[in-house]
Amino acid sequence: MNEFDLIKQYFRNVSPVVEGTTLGNGDDCALLQLKPNQTMAVSVDTLVEGVHFPCGASANDIAQRALRTALSDLAAMAATPRWVTLALTLPQHNSDWLSAFSEGLRADLHAFNCELIGGDTTRGALTISVQVMGVVENYPALTRAGAKVGDGIFVTHTLGNGAASLLQVLGKLQSLALPNALCSELDDLFYRPELAFYVAQQLHAVATSAIDISDGLVADLKHICTASGVGAKVNVAQLPYSATAKSLAKGIENTALNSERLTAQQLLQQWALYGGDDYQLCFTAPAHAVAELKEQTPLAATQIGVVVAEQGVQLHNNGQALAVQHKNGYTHFE
Amino acid sequence: MNEFDLIKQYFRNVSPVVEGTTLGNGDDCALLQLKPNQTMAVSVDTLVEGVHFPCGASANDIAQRALRTALSDLAAMAATPRWVTLALTLPQHNSDWLSAFSEGLRADLHAFNCELIGGDTTRGALTISVQVMGVVENYPALTRAGAKVGDGIFVTHTLGNGAASLLQVLGKLQSLALPNALCSELDDLFYRPELAFYVAQQLHAVATSAIDISDGLVADLKHICTASGVGAKVNVAQLPYSATAKSLAKGIENTALNSERLTAQQLLQQWALYGGDDYQLCFTAPAHAVAELKEQTPLAATQIGVVVAEQGVQLHNNGQALAVQHKNGYTHFE
Repeated sequence: MNEFDLIKQYFRNVSPVVEGTTLGNGDDCALLQLKPNQTMAVSVDTLVEGVHFPCGASANDIAQRALRTALSDLAAMAATPRWVTLALTLPQHNSDWLSAFSEGLRADLHAFNCELIGGDTTRGALTISVQVMGVVENYPALTRAGAKVGDGIFVTHTLGNGAASLLQVLGKLQSLALPNALCSELDDLFYRPELAFYVAQQLHAVATSAIDISDGLVADLKHICTASGVGAKVNVAQLPYSATAKSLAKGIENTALNSERLTAQQLLQQWALYGGDDYQLCFTAPAHAVAELKEQTPLAATQIGVVVAEQGVQLHNNGQALAVQHKNGYTHFE
Repeated sequence: MNEFDLIKQYFRNVSPVVEGTTLGNGDDCALLQLKPNQTMAVSVDTLVEGVHFPCGASANDIAQRALRTALSDLAAMAATPRWVTLALTLPQHNSDWLSAFSEGLRADLHAFNCELIGGDTTRGALTISVQVMGVVENYPALTRAGAKVGDGIFVTHTLGNGAASLLQVLGKLQSLALPNALCSELDDLFYRPELAFYVAQQLHAVATSAIDISDGLVADLKHICTASGVGAKVNVAQLPYSATAKSLAKGIENTALNSERLTAQQLLQQWALYGGDDYQLCFTAPAHAVAELKEQTPLAATQIGVVVAEQGVQLHNNGQALAVQHKNGYTHFE
């Protein structure tokens, strides 16, 4: 099967057709049109087998993680997903693998209503580059710059799912004999992280800056501080943890896996601050504006600190200073 | 050096800033704006070491081939290049390699006036995915569909450089002891194919369809025929060959490399029909419209055939039928 047949069989008609596509997949280029009041947001992310996901991961899972980790950058700018291109490098043609990959892709392209408008398939080590293009309409995009001294620092939903699910995917939890339901929930959280699009759409009017948490809260908050020329003071006592992360932390607390003998609470803190891969948003906004917004509509956001003039990220626990560790959430499966 | 430092050192400020960029490299997404009368053309191409270029090729060369082979798809639609994203997967951090890669990239980003607005760097087998975004303004883009029975079939500039330079890059010409100047010219043609942007801009008003010749003239012309629902009748006697390809064909004619004992003319024909990688355009247009255009402005285009109703590609040599071979220009360095 040559490249053209492969694309036709597995990647044609895999996605919805969205507004603004003048010409989709199948010619030299796709052709796209924006309305006058629309700005296009573009980002690209690459996943490499053995680095960003374990060797032997299911093709369905890989497709969904690749798409979602890329789409997360659109959420961080309060853009609405619209178009995707896929550069897929594969060691060999394997129709079972390709069918599963295209099924995973299809499900998420429909879930996020974006159209696959182009791509390239090549022979080589398994590598997936996804470029996402979204639209920001009638309001400015959220960037990392714009945080003001005195703003509150917020995170969307909860933290800890990224780090907890990574332990599962790395195979580190095998000795715990966790219930199957929890294992598969952790797998799910890794390959299908929940994205913060809905919250982003709600908060764009009040937020002064935003970033998606892929490298860890501390590392990503530093990007906001650098871009905005401000500092951040975070109260770790206010960090919101996911129920799954909480139960895993409890389960690990008194086992050999907890080599540093941390409490469940301390484990959660580490995961939330440095674990990364949560794909939730960290944003800044005047606290009163967020409070007003919460009176009008439920907003899944928790204040965790304040923007200060002194550069860098400071951590404290209800006023007691905490050292910032210089590690980041970079994950490596080799 | 982490990913952020690497991007800052080698890929920030590597390109011009172009019209329509609201926010460039460095945030979660780049932000782009089009004018109301503009359409965006998008394409992605991946090069894998050992498949699309030989192992050990210079980083400067790889960067330029990666960018140009991607840009060629914009030329085929008569789009003007504007934005580029780069997904670069590398086996290790090597500052000499990265400096050379970014220098090659810088030169061509400036040559084609396009801005690098985003990317991702990851660890793995050397793989380069380049996504190009261009603008089609005030006229429809050229697509593969639209060829009409009776139209002339044309190619831009000359053919044969792709196949000739591939022989050099594959190391097949070593026994010939060619002059250094010719060897380096052939290397140049492979890594820096000349693109047909200028001709594309001239002919967009008269052409009914177009494609860039990457897989070989016959294979690419078949794509036009399929998309347009027509057939093509090509007179191989009219194929325009490059001077370099001609001198190489003469040089090979009476050597062991010419295992099929073809004449120089037959070698050139094979290269032009099936060799691919020429990155010239094949387009269709009413012959009289092209003739009129040629009276107003020099147009580097040669008629090589006519569009016919009978599906598929037929070849003849001044009326004498020639069999179409079922091979394509796919190149493999493994």
